Amino acid sequence: MTAVIIFIADGTEEMEFTITYDTLVRAGATVVSVFVPDTTSTSHPVSPPVAKGSRGINIMPDMYLDRSQLTVDKFDSLVVPGGAKGADTISKNSTVQDLVREFYKNGKLVGMICNGSLAALTSRLPKQPLTSHPAVKSRLETEFEYSEDPVVVSGNLITSRGPGTTFPFALTLVESLFGREKRVEVQGPMVFPTGTPWVNAQ
Amino acid sequence: MTAVIIFIADGTEEMEFTITYDTLVRAGATVVSVFVPDTTSTSHPVSPPVAKGSRGINIMPDMYLDRSQLTVDKFDSLVVPGGAKGADTISKNSTVQDLVREFYKNGKLVGMICNGSLAALTSRLPKQPLTSHPAVKSRLETEFEYSEDPVVVSGNLITSRGPGTTFPFALTLVESLFGREKRVEVQGPMVFPTGTPWVNAQ
Repeated sequence: MTAVIIFIADGTEEMEFTITYDTLVRAGATVVSVFVPDTTSTSHPVSPPVAKGSRGINIMPDMYLDRSQLTVDKFDSLVVPGGAKGADTISKNSTVQDLVREFYKNGKLVGMICNGSLAALTSRLPKQPLTSHPAVKSRLETEFEYSEDPVVVSGNLITSRGPGTTFPFALTLVESLFGREKRVEVQGPMVFPTGTPWVNAQ
Repeated sequence: MTAVIIFIADGTEEMEFTITYDTLVRAGATVVSVFVPDTTSTSHPVSPPVAKGSRGINIMPDMYLDRSQLTVDKFDSLVVPGGAKGADTISKNSTVQDLVREFYKNGKLVGMICNGSLAALTSRLPKQPLTSHPAVKSRLETEFEYSEDPVVVSGNLITSRGPGTTFPFALTLVESLFGREKRVEVQGPMVFPTGTPWVNAQ
């Protein structure tokens, strides 16, 4: 069983979250969405938590952030989606930072997209090739080898740019976790238009 | 104010739902997700309803299906997403069928994607150009002028194929509701890769 953690918070970009989660499930992964509370908020976290996405879609996460349940022996990968407010909450959370470092050091696949790439900075990952949403480029370009490619694969760190690059990002995660054949199998029934660059790349 | 209804049910394809909802909100629309209960289910609908998407993402709709609140004078458009089970529930619901016919006849924009195009059949819309997910082509090709284009615009009926065509579908809805300039404005910050066909079409 291939298990993947994907973080979610109030303000997470719901397209990036949903495309990544759904595509990984199509490939056969068990995906667990983990709610990260905004500890700076004056309102209390609700239970069961519902995350309000950046454009207002309410998503019920699969579990609340609980360090004891989120260990490298149980999961194969960890993903940080974007959305300005959501990525801010997730990337500043010290438990998340611990997990990002632990997963990265243990060679587990770590994915970050859009403003989610800020977690590479806050988790103090080593300087290496990386991309992000253009909006946070200035915060990342000195600490990393900043790229403007849609998807950047640097060892076990895979980063990407925004909603428009989430399909190739998710399919790259599928390819890393399950192989190229599975990527091709998954993208078929999605019916991408002829000429879609990440499909023709196959 | 431009207001859009998007239906959701257990089994709705969550990428198609989320990409459409989010993109329309980015364009300035007020989007209302409306939960359609599976009346053939033996379990009771819950309140507040949570729809379990086709790949397991739980989404909390904005409202329950309520004919009295869903009138053509309050909304500018109506969208039916896919997902085999979700689209089956939505397209077989007689209240939905009434709404589809009423919106269509009043010249409101009606969008259908993937298996959601079955609603054109169940709502007995006139024979015209249409597309859908390839999986339900055989159920639609005699009653409609079936096309395999990623997005088919036929007057005020816009249809599309699957998760991989949802961005161009949603951007076509944006263009129809708000104009070409808004479409270009919305797609910019999404950071589509160079060569993405629905962006180069601009």
